[in-house]
Amino acid sequence: MAELRQATGLLRVETPGQALVEIGRDVARWVAAQGMDEGLLTLLCRHTSASLTIQENAAPAVQCDLLAWLVRIAPEDGHYRHDDEGPDDMPAHIRAMLTGVTLSIPLIGGRLALGTWQGLYLVEHRRAPHHREIALHLLGA
Amino acid sequence: MAELRQATGLLRVETPGQALVEIGRDVARWVAAQGMDEGLLTLLCRHTSASLTIQENAAPAVQCDLLAWLVRIAPEDGHYRHDDEGPDDMPAHIRAMLTGVTLSIPLIGGRLALGTWQGLYLVEHRRAPHHREIALHLLGA
Amino acid sequence: MAELRQATGLLRVETPGQALVEIGRDVARWVAAQGMDEGLLTLLCRHTSASLTIQENAAPAVQCDLLAWLVRIAPEDGHYRHDDEGPDDMPAHIRAMLTGVTLSIPLIGGRLALGTWQGLYLVEHRRAPHHREIALHLLGA
Repeated sequence: MAELRQATGLLRVETPGQALVEIGRDVARWVAAQGMDEGLLTLLCRHTSASLTIQENAAPAVQCDLLAWLVRIAPEDGHYRHDDEGPDDMPAHIRAMLTGVTLSIPLIGGRLALGTWQGLYLVEHRRAPHHREIALHLLGA
Repeated sequence: MAELRQATGLLRVETPGQALVEIGRDVARWVAAQGMDEGLLTLLCRHTSASLTIQENAAPAVQCDLLAWLVRIAPEDGHYRHDDEGPDDMPAHIRAMLTGVTLSIPLIGGRLALGTWQGLYLVEHRRAPHHREIALHLLGA
Repeated sequence: MAELRQATGLLRVETPGQALVEIGRDVARWVAAQGMDEGLLTLLCRHTSASLTIQENAAPAVQCDLLAWLVRIAPEDGHYRHDDEGPDDMPAHIRAMLTGVTLSIPLIGGRLALGTWQGLYLVEHRRAPHHREIALHLLGA
């Protein structure tokens, strides 16, 4: 049995404003470069107005519906106390809290153990384009 | 100190349609079979219309209320663009995004460190029964 | 390369009733005491009416707005079946399910890899003060 080791990294993501941005390919490339077959990948989105989700990767309409639902459930005109960073800031915090900023994914047989229809996304909740960072940790052998 | 090692596995779960399905016993049995005392268990639900949650395990009414609330917050008649897989599909994606598909649980003294009232559940969000899969990763010694 | 090892612990948190309670300092102190530079920290809130979140640490109004939003989305008068532990119990379960009870955070260069504006919080969803426990697991070297 190969000895366990770990690797850490940082993934930079450019977002176009409010959107689900596919990050699965970049993440898989970084994982492959660490040369492990079995292990555990952890991702942390280092922001409070963007988040991470694992969601349907086939039908683009699903992503539109997810974003529209988040806008409806945490709207811009929500009578928030915190409004000094623009009307889209506080709802972005709420949407990020709901969807979460950390994910852990087993690596099995050299591949992330995601299901067939599962894609990996950074969710940008602000209206404007942003530079985002995801911290990566891989444990394995 | 014993050397760290890891194990991976796959848990199959049959669901009866929309429900919280208790998986704690099966998960604990798999963990016990790996013969570790301290460690970290990670679960990934490999689907986008089912999810995982840690919730109250004593009062069955809690589970009814959780499901009813999810139906109310993401209803079937939500005017979604994505509706080619049936009216319960898009709300299932939203509910899965809200509740999440990964969980990480410390193993301490040979037992998962869940609280007294915490149970481990797969949440089926579709109306029809489904075969579901959960990828498992255990690190420890 | 230093050999990987692990540590487990328990953090006790006193809450004043419904609030976001900052736990980042206590968590960072426990992590520092384990003497690791690189690794992965996992937290599990051992309750079903309190949860964990990573959120904005600068503007106190954000925390008020997050709590107010959770109250609005899962109100006390929600016609729940489960009401034998008080009107604030069932909404607390819902809010805990939404925000989640586990978090995993990479440790890089001796520090948790949180972003500049990210704070670590236990979210108390009950009205009364409570004693809460968080199970901790650290893997690293």
